[in-house]
Amino acid sequence: MTNSTGDIGQRAIDLHRYYQGKLSIEAKMPLRSAEDLSLAYTPGVGHVSTAVANDHSLSYELTGRGRTVAVVSDGSAVLGLGNLGALGAMPVMEGKCLLFKELGGIDAVPIVLETQDADELVMIVKNLAPSFGGINLEDISAPRCFDIEARLQDIGIPVFHDDQHGTAIVTTAAVTNALRVVGKQLGQVKIVFSGAGAAGIACAHMLIKAGASNLILVDSVGSIYDGRPDLNHAKRDIAKVTNREAITGDIHEAIIGADIFIGLSSPGVIDRNDVKRMAPDAIVLAMANPIPEIMPDEAKAGGAAVIGTGRSDFPNQVNNVLAFPGVFKGALSMRAHRVTAEMQMAAAVALASLVDSPGQENILPEALDRAVAPRIASAVAQAWREHLKI
Amino acid sequence: MTNSTGDIGQRAIDLHRYYQGKLSIEAKMPLRSAEDLSLAYTPGVGHVSTAVANDHSLSYELTGRGRTVAVVSDGSAVLGLGNLGALGAMPVMEGKCLLFKELGGIDAVPIVLETQDADELVMIVKNLAPSFGGINLEDISAPRCFDIEARLQDIGIPVFHDDQHGTAIVTTAAVTNALRVVGKQLGQVKIVFSGAGAAGIACAHMLIKAGASNLILVDSVGSIYDGRPDLNHAKRDIAKVTNREAITGDIHEAIIGADIFIGLSSPGVIDRNDVKRMAPDAIVLAMANPIPEIMPDEAKAGGAAVIGTGRSDFPNQVNNVLAFPGVFKGALSMRAHRVTAEMQMAAAVALASLVDSPGQENILPEALDRAVAPRIASAVAQAWREHLKI
Repeated sequence: MTNSTGDIGQRAIDLHRYYQGKLSIEAKMPLRSAEDLSLAYTPGVGHVSTAVANDHSLSYELTGRGRTVAVVSDGSAVLGLGNLGALGAMPVMEGKCLLFKELGGIDAVPIVLETQDADELVMIVKNLAPSFGGINLEDISAPRCFDIEARLQDIGIPVFHDDQHGTAIVTTAAVTNALRVVGKQLGQVKIVFSGAGAAGIACAHMLIKAGASNLILVDSVGSIYDGRPDLNHAKRDIAKVTNREAITGDIHEAIIGADIFIGLSSPGVIDRNDVKRMAPDAIVLAMANPIPEIMPDEAKAGGAAVIGTGRSDFPNQVNNVLAFPGVFKGALSMRAHRVTAEMQMAAAVALASLVDSPGQENILPEALDRAVAPRIASAVAQAWREHLKI
Repeated sequence: MTNSTGDIGQRAIDLHRYYQGKLSIEAKMPLRSAEDLSLAYTPGVGHVSTAVANDHSLSYELTGRGRTVAVVSDGSAVLGLGNLGALGAMPVMEGKCLLFKELGGIDAVPIVLETQDADELVMIVKNLAPSFGGINLEDISAPRCFDIEARLQDIGIPVFHDDQHGTAIVTTAAVTNALRVVGKQLGQVKIVFSGAGAAGIACAHMLIKAGASNLILVDSVGSIYDGRPDLNHAKRDIAKVTNREAITGDIHEAIIGADIFIGLSSPGVIDRNDVKRMAPDAIVLAMANPIPEIMPDEAKAGGAAVIGTGRSDFPNQVNNVLAFPGVFKGALSMRAHRVTAEMQMAAAVALASLVDSPGQENILPEALDRAVAPRIASAVAQAWREHLKI
């Protein structure tokens, strides 16, 4: 592990240039003889096509569909960098596919789309469905992402917006274990969010489902409360179940007395003085990428007991990579039609359970821990079985 | 090589079930340490994304785009089997991708689309463009395919409907070498087509460009002539430059005295008696898949001098696999914006030239001959250079 970031950009560019991307597509079936060709291609493949056309479930057995996922983005909200467009999003999508393969054994195809029109995105993803066993939506800006994902829940394969639910799963697991470290209960703590985008809102919903009752979300305008003018649909919904005292003001006011800070916003929005005004044994999860809301040494100087970021070069990396490979692996193994809220919660519980004795610098497994995805996949599959009552 | 077809369907299905498809997507970049992760993914990948967003040409250097092609179908005309739909088309598209990799070293992604609406297909493919260096359209029914392909020529990357142009390239090369075998000249022979779909019409246009002047196309209604009612746009165009004597009647009449029969239609439309009525030293290219317009032994019994089919289990396989890997390899190597008619003709000439001494059973290289794609790629790249006048 290294904390050097000085030339990380140049090293990353050099590495990407050397490999010309991060994936390759390889042939699995032999193709050495005319007979091989007659089986993999014409005339033999005609029989395979006819069989699949007559029984669509065979698409999971005779084609790669059942172990293949598309990672789809319009490039409208790439990492914390904003609207970089389709081409700018591709390196991130390729990275996601690399992680799908390495951690979940899933073949993943990066697809970046030129359009940022919600209707067009919905139409395109719907029409891509026969090619894949699942769709991972990625880096699509809020609030468009909520509506887009909701409209794609009935296309017959799981459609999962990782920026929402992947983040929510890993954050919920991180919060669960951080609370074990400091000896507090989820139902009794005050949680303040910096950021009410896709990730922030999904995390808030999931933590409430897990038992949290005292949350305040703060966006760039200030604390979100029921009745605040200017709220989009998703924020109006979350306002109904958070900030019951309708506190106003900015993050520096909302954070006073909070037990947990969850940052899913932008670099440097709080400093050590904000952390000092939190409750004792404060938990700070500052997950803006690549620069967190507060650097770990600064949060420590403010007295935080447990500190996590989204980065691989600090302890307690709260990274979606801990969730999405296992979530899709579990869903694909059951040919699930969707990823339900129960499957997501099962994933969070399984992830938290992977750490036997949580400590200040050990609330989550390492991002590349190969034991994580199998455990989550098993829990997600079990939750789908329960959904089907089988 | 084997002529057994008895259980080829079951063997093909067994093989597809064993491998669960024909492709796998592999990780090229190492992912063993937290530092690997910080370079392939956050925070390092953010620098790569920003670089590509600022200079789109870097998408060819820092992502896999420049060596990746999408094989896109709506399943409306799968092989000779008709409208099998998206799922039914997938085994064929995977097969195509297998061939792209094995013969052209190109990463190819199979994409089958739920919709068969032309406007939607055009819109979807346009929006997929940033993800790929080229698009191979496949198994899209005529006459929709002509319009769809034409509307996609200006999206900045090559869009190539293989059923049209791949077939035309290989057929033109086959005709070139078959004429050398029988000692006839393209400008002086009569060519009759069974089939005026995507492949038939594209072949006719290319043979005319190569110097042919006496062609008759026959569809399910009969001979196509200028002014025949019921012709679609593509058939009206080809009628203007073929069948100058406006002969009517079916294939059995049109074939009388023909030097070349080109079958791109359906099984068994002619028999040995039709071949007997052709000119001496007749050339029969019966390319319906999986069952040709006339089986080779039957054509031989009718006196044909040169016989080709689309199948790998007979001599003279006239198969698009001889063209598309090299065509795309050449186009990708130049980052060409399209595949021009000149690039296609260069591919046909290069393909024919690969056979030193054509013979009755040797008018084309073997389908899996690894020397073919490199030669075609080089010719296609040169043609693009000439197009750019560099």
